[in-house]
Amino acid sequence: MAGKIQSLTEEERAHLLPLLHNAQWVEVVGRDAIYKEFIFKDFNQAFGFMSRVALQAEKMDHHPEWFNVYNKVNTYIKDYVTLTFVLQVQITLSTHDCGGLSQRDITMATFMDQASLM
Amino acid sequence: MAGKIQSLTEEERAHLLPLLHNAQWVEVVGRDAIYKEFIFKDFNQAFGFMSRVALQAEKMDHHPEWFNVYNKVNTYIKDYVTLTFVLQVQITLSTHDCGGLSQRDITMATFMDQASLM
Amino acid sequence: MAGKIQSLTEEERAHLLPLLHNAQWVEVVGRDAIYKEFIFKDFNQAFGFMSRVALQAEKMDHHPEWFNVYNKVNTYIKDYVTLTFVLQVQITLSTHDCGGLSQRDITMATFMDQASLM
Amino acid sequence: MAGKIQSLTEEERAHLLPLLHNAQWVEVVGRDAIYKEFIFKDFNQAFGFMSRVALQAEKMDHHPEWFNVYNKVNTYIKDYVTLTFVLQVQITLSTHDCGGLSQRDITMATFMDQASLM
Repeated sequence: MAGKIQSLTEEERAHLLPLLHNAQWVEVVGRDAIYKEFIFKDFNQAFGFMSRVALQAEKMDHHPEWFNVYNKVNTYIKDYVTLTFVLQVQITLSTHDCGGLSQRDITMATFMDQASLM
Repeated sequence: MAGKIQSLTEEERAHLLPLLHNAQWVEVVGRDAIYKEFIFKDFNQAFGFMSRVALQAEKMDHHPEWFNVYNKVNTYIKDYVTLTFVLQVQITLSTHDCGGLSQRDITMATFMDQASLM
Repeated sequence: MAGKIQSLTEEERAHLLPLLHNAQWVEVVGRDAIYKEFIFKDFNQAFGFMSRVALQAEKMDHHPEWFNVYNKVNTYIKDYVTLTFVLQVQITLSTHDCGGLSQRDITMATFMDQASLM
Repeated sequence: MAGKIQSLTEEERAHLLPLLHNAQWVEVVGRDAIYKEFIFKDFNQAFGFMSRVALQAEKMDHHPEWFNVYNKVNTYIKDYVTLTFVLQVQITLSTHDCGGLSQRDITMATFMDQASLM
């Protein structure tokens, strides 16, 4: 809320990015940002999650780029693949003020991971 | 969505109300309605729940009476009682069209119980 | 966000409360708080308003007490009174930290008045 | 809610698409769908709109593809162009069940146009 927002340092990246990768966040090609697809079984669950993220975003003054779509995804059951429709919320996080990843993105990513565990 | 909504029959009440009592729903005095207090640790969780209930309410065309407040409640830890602030969502369910409880209230109560388990 | 929240001074009350009264806010009997009933034509509009208030509440860390109900109200058309069902959002504002009205309640009331004009 | 959803007929398209174009909806290249960018001055307004759309989507069982981002757009003031940050909600509408535009998309587009006028 105060002062200039700092980019993550190299040490912070070396420590934090592996943790995000473990939680299925990936780095965006050609841009200092992280991306994850959250999957919900219906629109009700997806929008409940989005509402919680919206409140957190206003509190932190840090807003995601998000895309929400009813999508076909491959589901693997043993040796079989089937197409299932699910509600996807695709989220990209980055910090305008420092032109890349900052601690705010890490905090928001962690919040989203917890809020998605319903 | 179609036809007249029926009140619960005596048999349905005898079967369903004990299940609701087990889930901490109580009957309102002087009115054919049920009531429950949902407790959340913060406003973010409370409003995520309210958003999911709002979507379900529009889908079913069945809207709750709800009160949301940051409240002091007694918390019991072993032999001690402490006052803690929590976010309460107090909900009353009844069906206008039949002047009392109907199957819709049961469906909505069950949805709320599931959505509150985050 | 920082420091102790101050109650409104007598001068501030003398200046601000008349403005709130003009906007249909009333003072609560027996408690230093203000109250208003917002009326919407349907649940969709009412909950859109509540979502905006929820985001603002998290941003300000100042949460309302609110009750939302589908209610019968008297509507006056010329010399006739009819009962109409409308969505009411009944809101009470007060500040825990100072035990009464503070500048935050004024800011929130003003936000609500603007957000309700849809 | 019942029966197979029909694609728009040629007559319906000839009548309805010009009305949508007037309201800044455009047709998507290579896909039978319509697209519009809604612009809001802040995240609070954008998410209030999204909440109303979410409720309507559940009621109609018809869900949009939507992308929400804080974006730079060109703003024209007389002969000058400036870059301004605004909250964009980019929406694509199409109907899975008939593989293209149906009456539901028209109804939803009209709802969105009204809900965005705050």
